[in-house]
Amino acid sequence: MRDARFASDNAAGVHPEVMAAIVEANDGAALAYGADPWTARAEVAIRRVLDAPEAGVWLVPSGTGANVLALRAVTGRIDGVLCADTAHLHRSETGAPELTAGVKLLTVPAVDGRLTPRAVRAAIPPRDGDHAVRPAVLSITQATEWGTVYTPAEVAALAEVAHAHGMLLHVDGARLANAAVALDTSLAALTTHAGVDLVSLGGTKNGALAAEAVVFLRPGLGKGAGRHRKQITQLVSKMRFVGAQLSALYAGDLWWRCAAHANHQAQALSRAVVAVSGVRLALPVSTNAVFVELPVDLCAPLAEHFAFELWDPARRIARWMTAWDTTEGDIRQLVGTMRALRGEVDDEE
Amino acid sequence: MRDARFASDNAAGVHPEVMAAIVEANDGAALAYGADPWTARAEVAIRRVLDAPEAGVWLVPSGTGANVLALRAVTGRIDGVLCADTAHLHRSETGAPELTAGVKLLTVPAVDGRLTPRAVRAAIPPRDGDHAVRPAVLSITQATEWGTVYTPAEVAALAEVAHAHGMLLHVDGARLANAAVALDTSLAALTTHAGVDLVSLGGTKNGALAAEAVVFLRPGLGKGAGRHRKQITQLVSKMRFVGAQLSALYAGDLWWRCAAHANHQAQALSRAVVAVSGVRLALPVSTNAVFVELPVDLCAPLAEHFAFELWDPARRIARWMTAWDTTEGDIRQLVGTMRALRGEVDDEE
Amino acid sequence: MRDARFASDNAAGVHPEVMAAIVEANDGAALAYGADPWTARAEVAIRRVLDAPEAGVWLVPSGTGANVLALRAVTGRIDGVLCADTAHLHRSETGAPELTAGVKLLTVPAVDGRLTPRAVRAAIPPRDGDHAVRPAVLSITQATEWGTVYTPAEVAALAEVAHAHGMLLHVDGARLANAAVALDTSLAALTTHAGVDLVSLGGTKNGALAAEAVVFLRPGLGKGAGRHRKQITQLVSKMRFVGAQLSALYAGDLWWRCAAHANHQAQALSRAVVAVSGVRLALPVSTNAVFVELPVDLCAPLAEHFAFELWDPARRIARWMTAWDTTEGDIRQLVGTMRALRGEVDDEE
Amino acid sequence: MRDARFASDNAAGVHPEVMAAIVEANDGAALAYGADPWTARAEVAIRRVLDAPEAGVWLVPSGTGANVLALRAVTGRIDGVLCADTAHLHRSETGAPELTAGVKLLTVPAVDGRLTPRAVRAAIPPRDGDHAVRPAVLSITQATEWGTVYTPAEVAALAEVAHAHGMLLHVDGARLANAAVALDTSLAALTTHAGVDLVSLGGTKNGALAAEAVVFLRPGLGKGAGRHRKQITQLVSKMRFVGAQLSALYAGDLWWRCAAHANHQAQALSRAVVAVSGVRLALPVSTNAVFVELPVDLCAPLAEHFAFELWDPARRIARWMTAWDTTEGDIRQLVGTMRALRGEVDDEE
Repeated sequence: MRDARFASDNAAGVHPEVMAAIVEANDGAALAYGADPWTARAEVAIRRVLDAPEAGVWLVPSGTGANVLALRAVTGRIDGVLCADTAHLHRSETGAPELTAGVKLLTVPAVDGRLTPRAVRAAIPPRDGDHAVRPAVLSITQATEWGTVYTPAEVAALAEVAHAHGMLLHVDGARLANAAVALDTSLAALTTHAGVDLVSLGGTKNGALAAEAVVFLRPGLGKGAGRHRKQITQLVSKMRFVGAQLSALYAGDLWWRCAAHANHQAQALSRAVVAVSGVRLALPVSTNAVFVELPVDLCAPLAEHFAFELWDPARRIARWMTAWDTTEGDIRQLVGTMRALRGEVDDEE
Repeated sequence: MRDARFASDNAAGVHPEVMAAIVEANDGAALAYGADPWTARAEVAIRRVLDAPEAGVWLVPSGTGANVLALRAVTGRIDGVLCADTAHLHRSETGAPELTAGVKLLTVPAVDGRLTPRAVRAAIPPRDGDHAVRPAVLSITQATEWGTVYTPAEVAALAEVAHAHGMLLHVDGARLANAAVALDTSLAALTTHAGVDLVSLGGTKNGALAAEAVVFLRPGLGKGAGRHRKQITQLVSKMRFVGAQLSALYAGDLWWRCAAHANHQAQALSRAVVAVSGVRLALPVSTNAVFVELPVDLCAPLAEHFAFELWDPARRIARWMTAWDTTEGDIRQLVGTMRALRGEVDDEE
Repeated sequence: MRDARFASDNAAGVHPEVMAAIVEANDGAALAYGADPWTARAEVAIRRVLDAPEAGVWLVPSGTGANVLALRAVTGRIDGVLCADTAHLHRSETGAPELTAGVKLLTVPAVDGRLTPRAVRAAIPPRDGDHAVRPAVLSITQATEWGTVYTPAEVAALAEVAHAHGMLLHVDGARLANAAVALDTSLAALTTHAGVDLVSLGGTKNGALAAEAVVFLRPGLGKGAGRHRKQITQLVSKMRFVGAQLSALYAGDLWWRCAAHANHQAQALSRAVVAVSGVRLALPVSTNAVFVELPVDLCAPLAEHFAFELWDPARRIARWMTAWDTTEGDIRQLVGTMRALRGEVDDEE
Repeated sequence: MRDARFASDNAAGVHPEVMAAIVEANDGAALAYGADPWTARAEVAIRRVLDAPEAGVWLVPSGTGANVLALRAVTGRIDGVLCADTAHLHRSETGAPELTAGVKLLTVPAVDGRLTPRAVRAAIPPRDGDHAVRPAVLSITQATEWGTVYTPAEVAALAEVAHAHGMLLHVDGARLANAAVALDTSLAALTTHAGVDLVSLGGTKNGALAAEAVVFLRPGLGKGAGRHRKQITQLVSKMRFVGAQLSALYAGDLWWRCAAHANHQAQALSRAVVAVSGVRLALPVSTNAVFVELPVDLCAPLAEHFAFELWDPARRIARWMTAWDTTEGDIRQLVGTMRALRGEVDDEE
């Protein structure tokens, strides 16, 4: 079996503090479907960390589920959603936005996963009577699928464009923590304070077992979200265990520590890997994703040892993800394997 | 906060052996989305316990998710699904079968939650050209929402009716274990051996944290189920933890022990409760559900102490569920509270 | 080929005045999609005949299309629609309400196609948190599928129940004209004045070629209906020809004359048919539907000559529909064929 | 009211021969929903003109309806459809492919509305496990939205690419007749003989009132299409009038005559318009669409007189459509108006 360590940040296990919270929540009977204290505590923690005391918070077990719930709860059946052509929404959710959320996606050309106000404006379809969907949401990913980030000012600029055109701004924040760490800023600065309207707030990729949250930051948004959550199959019965996970992450600084570790190791990996002959970074590392262009004769052999996604097969760009648990030894093994495959002597060993 | 102990079997926590399995699975990196050994082990265990070596097994975190995946993967957009008018599918899933699975439900009058071949036959719409959906699946719940069961022979008779009319037989088995224990038979006898085509196999209500499985028993069924699972938001990234739960339940006899305990305590509760004046069983207890008709002046006061569902408000029929963790003390407290509210002296104390 | 004359009121052709209007509208170029004078005139006529000067009127070519548009434009994805278990919506639209409109139908037991406030109240699901859809619309058929009618007072009573429970009242009025004639009242009395919120107003069954209208009677309803109409494929490009049809019907009294003729001939047919031995009316004739219980040895032979629907196969209840073009000769032929098949001498001939 | 003559080919009326066929079909009773001789005759004519004796033919009133029925009947819920980024499917159907047909669209960059095998191949997503829809259909428009055409050889090349990747080839043929005339070839040469699997065959834009057909050319395709047609609201009850229209067009050479006239007048218009100062063709005219780049000071004033679509607002490219009824006088008026607005003397008058 191929080594899973850099395949994705969801190849990592559960952070010990999160696991301890799960075990601790296993204490007798508790009302199902979220009417329990752990869920309540998670909601409080999330509202606080986003500086959004009135926000509606809905816990779910899946990131795609979070995105679908977020979009579905704020749109009607004749609405569209603008997103990057690289967005997880568009490329990696098997049509769930269209078929389960029930919206048409309209893609915007992205550079390194990022959208600009100009690109968004250009992609808004002309007022076309009844022959086109109405763009109701602009969705961005933070950190993006290419590991890049939007600064608070950039998010605010996109919020302004969105609002000027009658759209809400949604952030797919499966890796929002990694972006905050990279920018050395708060989660609130990247969302509530920047004019974001709703967020899919990640947990699983940052040390949880299966826990995400949809957060409606603007009052009045997300009416009926509870029924939507059930209808799209995202209502977990023993919700307390989801609540416990998110509480563990967000009531204190665990979310930061996990993301900071992951980002730090991505930098370490990026420094180590460029020493391998013929390997170069496809773009600078901002968060916990390392994209490298592999030499033609290394790609296939390396894939026999380590699992990874070939992000751009034509250019042989591989994606490696670090996580809260990535060790220096992990990095040494990956780089060492590469050097061995290249016939290089590993000086460090 | 009201006492949750009898509100539902999903008010119970996680069985210690299941929790231990979750903790044990937290061991380094593992490929996401089910390409891990724990998932593989769960699949093997489930195929074995259902005596279906060729079955397709798909793990999901939610029972509604299991039903939606099961129905969606075997139907087209112009198909219908017959189910009891009391079915969870119809009454408790917020339209997920119609809106997320994409099938029209056609309800069949049930008695105590159970369907008969005669009732099913009468509910099949006449061949109506292109003006009606084609019933493609008959779905039954085992144990039913009223806690009743179908014997293997009764399941086989329904399978025969279903197949004779070009339908598959689906079993919503969120409490299949409880039915097997009640009938002192195997899970295979209630499914594979009885002609069932596909099953939503429960875990969460029987000691797991969030783990169910869709099992396609008939070869060739469920093509594309993996994509359907992703599209309906039921693909968990850190799947190993779902696999660990179901492996813990089904690789040995834990599923039987949990269900046997719950059923046993339901019998105990049913015996204890009829001693309270004015209280009577609404129907005999078969599995882990106890339905009681409450005196008019007991219903509201009791609801201040214990959470429960009023299954039939007109007749004041309350539903109490026992679980793998229900203790004699729990039963004593519920019955004691009732006696106290009725002004009766509790002889036992 | 079997005689189609009583198979349905849509077996009839197009009334000459409607056809003349179609031909007259074929006059040079006109903007498509409804921006033409014929459409505008139809809208004015319909608002007037319903006494609803502010109503939103949307023309469509199909009755099922009208129902789907009506329901879709006033509901969200987590809403339900209450309707009779005999409703066209539920039995004859191949799941379009669920799969194309995107709502869950909740059926109410009907007597002779009619609902009562009591039956509606009993069918409203209990407030069930997030586990059930919210009934957002009560839909009745006028005249019903059994040819029966609701008086204005009965409609008003159902409107009151609907509104008291947060529902809109929708009338599937494919045969509203026949009901108005039967009750000797106006279309407005059966809709706007009785508290109805939205109507599918028929045309095709009453002399048109393919023309229906969705009318949102209450101001503010039906936002985005134009986009919904396009999305569900009900936006006709050369809309002027739909407008011409409905203008022909509703700008004057053609709608009344057509329906009055059809109703009158249904009475004539019902009187003639009971003279055939062994044949009896299944229920009194109110509009243009005649339901007869056929003797066991007449049913199949008659069906070789005349096409008709067996509404209740068990009781051999056949449905015959009269239309704007039914002649006395048509009736004589049907009855004569029956008598001949029964071996009776036809005294009239 | 602005002049509608060049706004679209659906601004034209109904060809007299088609209208005569409609009037002729209004002859007594006929079974509804397509069980009539006119529908049968249309099916025969369409099979013949496409040289596809076994084809399944389904009549509908709307072009978007035809596309939705075609795609829905050959796909499952986890399938995708590749189409040009300029496709009517993607830009002008308000999300009907996604929300009513139930497929995810994947767009391919087009040049002048046309796709190449290379562009299609590049747009096929990598085999991405369960995280992406499976492209099941490649849909092209013939003639395209830019009025361009694919030769039979080009269609065959796209069919080859489609089939090599497990896709069917669908042709949105709302203007297929115009393409056949432009290429001086048969409808069969552009479809059946070129490996096309299914076609939306136009009628309305080519002289009909409201009539299109979905044709499944490959045996076995389109199972359940009748139920799909009803469910998406495209089953017309008085189908004989749709049958009469398509029979009038396709039983003889009327389809050719109408399209030939329209194409011829587009050439005439293109020649006349370039004489206006500052006006130039945006691309050569192939069929019945004329795209012109307007001078900055002509665009708005002209739009006060003539209705047209601004296809590319940035470049002020207007689209004018000719139809079966466009006269030389129509062209003179349009060009004359332009010259007058430009302050030019009209020599011809």
